[in-house]
Amino acid sequence: MIVITSNTTPEEQIADIVRVIEKEGLQASVSKGADRTVIGLIGQVNPQLAEHLRQMKGVENVVKITKSYKLASRDFHPENTVIKIKGVEIGGDELVVMGGPCAVESPEQIDEIAGLVKAAGGQVLRGGAFKPRTGPYSFQGIGVEGLIMMAEAGQKHGLLTITEVMTPEYVDICAEYADILQVGTRNMQNFDLLRKLGTCGKPVLLKRGFSATYDELLNAAEYILAGGNPDVMLCERGIRTFESYTRNTLDLSAIPVLQQLSHLPVISDPSHGTGRRELVEPMSKASVAAGANGLIIEMHTDPDNSMTGDGVQSLFPDQFAALLKDLEKLAPLVGRTFSTSKAPAEAFKVGV
Amino acid sequence: MIVITSNTTPEEQIADIVRVIEKEGLQASVSKGADRTVIGLIGQVNPQLAEHLRQMKGVENVVKITKSYKLASRDFHPENTVIKIKGVEIGGDELVVMGGPCAVESPEQIDEIAGLVKAAGGQVLRGGAFKPRTGPYSFQGIGVEGLIMMAEAGQKHGLLTITEVMTPEYVDICAEYADILQVGTRNMQNFDLLRKLGTCGKPVLLKRGFSATYDELLNAAEYILAGGNPDVMLCERGIRTFESYTRNTLDLSAIPVLQQLSHLPVISDPSHGTGRRELVEPMSKASVAAGANGLIIEMHTDPDNSMTGDGVQSLFPDQFAALLKDLEKLAPLVGRTFSTSKAPAEAFKVGV
Amino acid sequence: MIVITSNTTPEEQIADIVRVIEKEGLQASVSKGADRTVIGLIGQVNPQLAEHLRQMKGVENVVKITKSYKLASRDFHPENTVIKIKGVEIGGDELVVMGGPCAVESPEQIDEIAGLVKAAGGQVLRGGAFKPRTGPYSFQGIGVEGLIMMAEAGQKHGLLTITEVMTPEYVDICAEYADILQVGTRNMQNFDLLRKLGTCGKPVLLKRGFSATYDELLNAAEYILAGGNPDVMLCERGIRTFESYTRNTLDLSAIPVLQQLSHLPVISDPSHGTGRRELVEPMSKASVAAGANGLIIEMHTDPDNSMTGDGVQSLFPDQFAALLKDLEKLAPLVGRTFSTSKAPAEAFKVGV
Amino acid sequence: MIVITSNTTPEEQIADIVRVIEKEGLQASVSKGADRTVIGLIGQVNPQLAEHLRQMKGVENVVKITKSYKLASRDFHPENTVIKIKGVEIGGDELVVMGGPCAVESPEQIDEIAGLVKAAGGQVLRGGAFKPRTGPYSFQGIGVEGLIMMAEAGQKHGLLTITEVMTPEYVDICAEYADILQVGTRNMQNFDLLRKLGTCGKPVLLKRGFSATYDELLNAAEYILAGGNPDVMLCERGIRTFESYTRNTLDLSAIPVLQQLSHLPVISDPSHGTGRRELVEPMSKASVAAGANGLIIEMHTDPDNSMTGDGVQSLFPDQFAALLKDLEKLAPLVGRTFSTSKAPAEAFKVGV
Repeated sequence: MIVITSNTTPEEQIADIVRVIEKEGLQASVSKGADRTVIGLIGQVNPQLAEHLRQMKGVENVVKITKSYKLASRDFHPENTVIKIKGVEIGGDELVVMGGPCAVESPEQIDEIAGLVKAAGGQVLRGGAFKPRTGPYSFQGIGVEGLIMMAEAGQKHGLLTITEVMTPEYVDICAEYADILQVGTRNMQNFDLLRKLGTCGKPVLLKRGFSATYDELLNAAEYILAGGNPDVMLCERGIRTFESYTRNTLDLSAIPVLQQLSHLPVISDPSHGTGRRELVEPMSKASVAAGANGLIIEMHTDPDNSMTGDGVQSLFPDQFAALLKDLEKLAPLVGRTFSTSKAPAEAFKVGV
Repeated sequence: MIVITSNTTPEEQIADIVRVIEKEGLQASVSKGADRTVIGLIGQVNPQLAEHLRQMKGVENVVKITKSYKLASRDFHPENTVIKIKGVEIGGDELVVMGGPCAVESPEQIDEIAGLVKAAGGQVLRGGAFKPRTGPYSFQGIGVEGLIMMAEAGQKHGLLTITEVMTPEYVDICAEYADILQVGTRNMQNFDLLRKLGTCGKPVLLKRGFSATYDELLNAAEYILAGGNPDVMLCERGIRTFESYTRNTLDLSAIPVLQQLSHLPVISDPSHGTGRRELVEPMSKASVAAGANGLIIEMHTDPDNSMTGDGVQSLFPDQFAALLKDLEKLAPLVGRTFSTSKAPAEAFKVGV
Repeated sequence: MIVITSNTTPEEQIADIVRVIEKEGLQASVSKGADRTVIGLIGQVNPQLAEHLRQMKGVENVVKITKSYKLASRDFHPENTVIKIKGVEIGGDELVVMGGPCAVESPEQIDEIAGLVKAAGGQVLRGGAFKPRTGPYSFQGIGVEGLIMMAEAGQKHGLLTITEVMTPEYVDICAEYADILQVGTRNMQNFDLLRKLGTCGKPVLLKRGFSATYDELLNAAEYILAGGNPDVMLCERGIRTFESYTRNTLDLSAIPVLQQLSHLPVISDPSHGTGRRELVEPMSKASVAAGANGLIIEMHTDPDNSMTGDGVQSLFPDQFAALLKDLEKLAPLVGRTFSTSKAPAEAFKVGV
Repeated sequence: MIVITSNTTPEEQIADIVRVIEKEGLQASVSKGADRTVIGLIGQVNPQLAEHLRQMKGVENVVKITKSYKLASRDFHPENTVIKIKGVEIGGDELVVMGGPCAVESPEQIDEIAGLVKAAGGQVLRGGAFKPRTGPYSFQGIGVEGLIMMAEAGQKHGLLTITEVMTPEYVDICAEYADILQVGTRNMQNFDLLRKLGTCGKPVLLKRGFSATYDELLNAAEYILAGGNPDVMLCERGIRTFESYTRNTLDLSAIPVLQQLSHLPVISDPSHGTGRRELVEPMSKASVAAGANGLIIEMHTDPDNSMTGDGVQSLFPDQFAALLKDLEKLAPLVGRTFSTSKAPAEAFKVGV
């Protein structure tokens, strides 16, 4: 950490600053510049000291030069984290595609969609049992029953499952039924939830808050990692900007940046990231080209009648299958493997 | 709600749209314009229908013309909500000032600060027992003990108390000790927490998410109101913008806008809204001039050594007292009453 | 300036960095920290060197600790700049109110409005002769004729005049007729225009770009000051955020921040800053409470028929007059003087 | 256009609204809904009327349902615009790559870089002769001399040239020397410049303002098109958000959205869009995957010593060549053609 003084700071104030630093058992390294003096701190600095210094007379700025997260940092863990679940590897060479409806609606619905996801080449079934909704009068999900339906559909079709958990008290039950637990954008800084996920024993997909910086996302991941759970995926799902044509602005630079700052896998969500079905295909391809380890995509057999009203961003099954065919060609160009070969053509009689 | 078709939508698609509307038991009112046809829906529209229509062929846009919140809306409740707690009225003519440290640190600290808040003319003691922190390694508050210390200090000095509650499981204990429960900016859309607060029996101060729209804030309030708790205050505490000189951009237009859209009291938080001590005074005055029903201000006897490091935005006691003296003159100019007369001058021997 | 190296930077790279610094005739002050080395630069650093260093192997960050503007900085010019024009002082104790229509429409219109501005206590008549418009098919202003009409109205009623200039070639003609030239938000970084204004001989009101940082605004002012024109006012007029209920988000913290960083007067524009008539009154008061040196407010006798369609944010004359009466009481509470005594009551028969 | 009244608007106010509409020679189509009345306008509506209506008593909202730009709209011009310059087609199947330094520095520099751009497979040489700079003390470009150097280098190596023009008075000289004129992000709404470009006789690349909406960008293009120049390319170059790790947030959704709303070619600028060299490669690939018609990329033989200090975002020649090799494989997957076959391997002895 560095303390920058103003150009009018007298010697005795600089001496005060040095005294405060040394009182904490740290060394102070003073450099006199052309127009101001800079004091470097040597040793482990606690945040209170930083703020204390920031407020001292004569101090213009205090600059942190080390990151506030450790376990999530690539400095600390240079190798990529590869999360292995029942034969699927997330964070390695394989491109992982998660597909499914916004919300689980019925056993038939989730079974049919699971079959289509599998047939198209997807490895993970997504679906919401508990739904976060802006207003209290919107459909809030069907709850635990939905978890069970999804687990059965996943098992039958040979797919992993991922579902959102919204509150600490539901972590255990979600962890019982799902292979991956998802933290939604509004809960990225629900710290009690993050702490609970640190001990849940299942991998976690952590969505970036729609106004969270990269640094805040990595600090949120740190909560889970610090709890003892090493299996965290980061998910870019669009940020809030002044542009209102798209629901969010999908920030694809987040993919290479997060992979550089951290060793954790990075997943892109072009469905929520754009909010418009016609943009899911180009933004999925762009995400893979930017280096994403995986995609999470909404798909529905009857999006016009989806229960959440998020159908507007869901692909039809044939669009989903066609996209995955295209990704099969695109992935190798950026060092990823992806195969749709498990997909028998006849699977698509259903649906579309 | 209105459905807008594109300029090339053929008659049969318009007929399809009308059929879908009528199937739901609603009336469709078709107006043919110069370059497109617009269809109005008459009757109560559910959100799924809206989204269904949005995705139909030939539909360019669907415009909602009614608000998604009801109980929070001034249309529904034209009179101001005035929250009465032990003789203090929030939302009426009185300007309410809440002051205190970021975090409760010790019985002596909170007692001393409570005395200074009271002496300066404040009516409410603020202080955090549970603290939301971006990273897991920062000080997280002293917990239930802090609640007790604060309750005692409030009682001794004749102040109401307000404290943040971060998770549903702590609502009951916080409601036992504090007069007002606060929802922090990161929890504005923690829907389980909001639901629990709907039945907690204590008034709630709901902070705007740092990237929440007015509409989302009012929908979050709706969750609490819909649970049966009518005593909600809205709090503007700064939004996230591209400007990084201030920690947030305090959006004072929110004050008159929220008072126009809603009947709930609006409180301003210039401490978090700016993140800089020297801006608290001008932004407090500006908040009152813009019509705020109250202010929530951080004050600390020794901000340089506060445990959270938020001291950088805390006023010193003498600054706090001087500000309240100024507000006493300013308030009547905008139709508010505020008196510091309870403040004996000698109270300020302590502190600074 | 400070160069921060990463924790793995070897000694020879640090030596390289020092060599580059010394080659430029500067001194390098090396401090070895617990986990990284920091190198301070002593002497005048040019921007190319900064960027060169930023890209060198082993460099993690380069932090500027001096501001890029000089003449606009309070460090350089500690006293407030007070701009004196025909007896009006802008930047001193006096609160200055500029009022008038969005666009000059006819001699009668501007004459009537000028009478009302004067009667209410305003000191400056605003009005656009050249209008910047988002689309090419909107009304673009009446041009030079409008300048003449405005100059005549100002002279007759004893008001200064301010008008926007959009392109370098019109600076001379605008400077001939108007007392103050205004740079609009879209032109804040029209550098050729700024350079030309540096030699125009008239005071300039420089509006903040709707996405400009404080630093960029002060650098834009620096262009004008560096050209030899010391009479620059800064104007906060709202920034673009995700909130779309208001046209812009008026950032009132800009007022005290700019006054702290710079010696130039700061004017607030609550009309464009909110885009809604009903918010102009509370935001005008809030601006003054925050310390603004002046206000620029749209007022129109018949806003529903204004030629630009900006009438939606224009006050009616009686609202304008009532606001100024209120400001007369508010101003002294924040150390400003303002008098409406020149306003004979009968002047308001006209208007609404 | 649609006028929406509030739920309490009495009949006589609705009659007033209808009267105002009919006075303008338009038809009013009144639909009474369950809780409010909606009035559709049939005929060509001018903006003043819209605003007039918005302010009338009883009106809650006025919704525009047609776009404000026409010539730029795909509704008006369904086929893609393909701009043909000396055998290069921009906007058709071909992927167009523009490369070169931020600023032209010397005949040798631009000649060497032109050779490398050509060798790598680029079709257009970029380079700034006039540079927009935030502060007045930064290097401002070498001016007309630079134009001549660039024209010579382009001619020698068989490349088109593109350069930025900042002010109307330089349009003619730039048009004399360059094949494509570029409007920078800060000038997107410099309307006099746009008007002048409407008659300049050369294709224009129009960069999106860093806080401009899609709608504003298309309106700015409309200024040029309305002046008689049909050859406009739109350029996404990053928008300003709260995230400060990257210089801007490259909004790749803009590519498919603009191609859907407009027929004009869309170019991506990953250099300015990220401001970081290591992100240029993944974001270039992502841009092509999202459907971009072309890329504009900074490349420099000695970025550490570039005169503008923008070297931090410039690729080294070997990185540029390797990227284009990769794009050659990627382009066909999204329906574009691109060939680097003109690039003899030995050309790259120079440079790195």
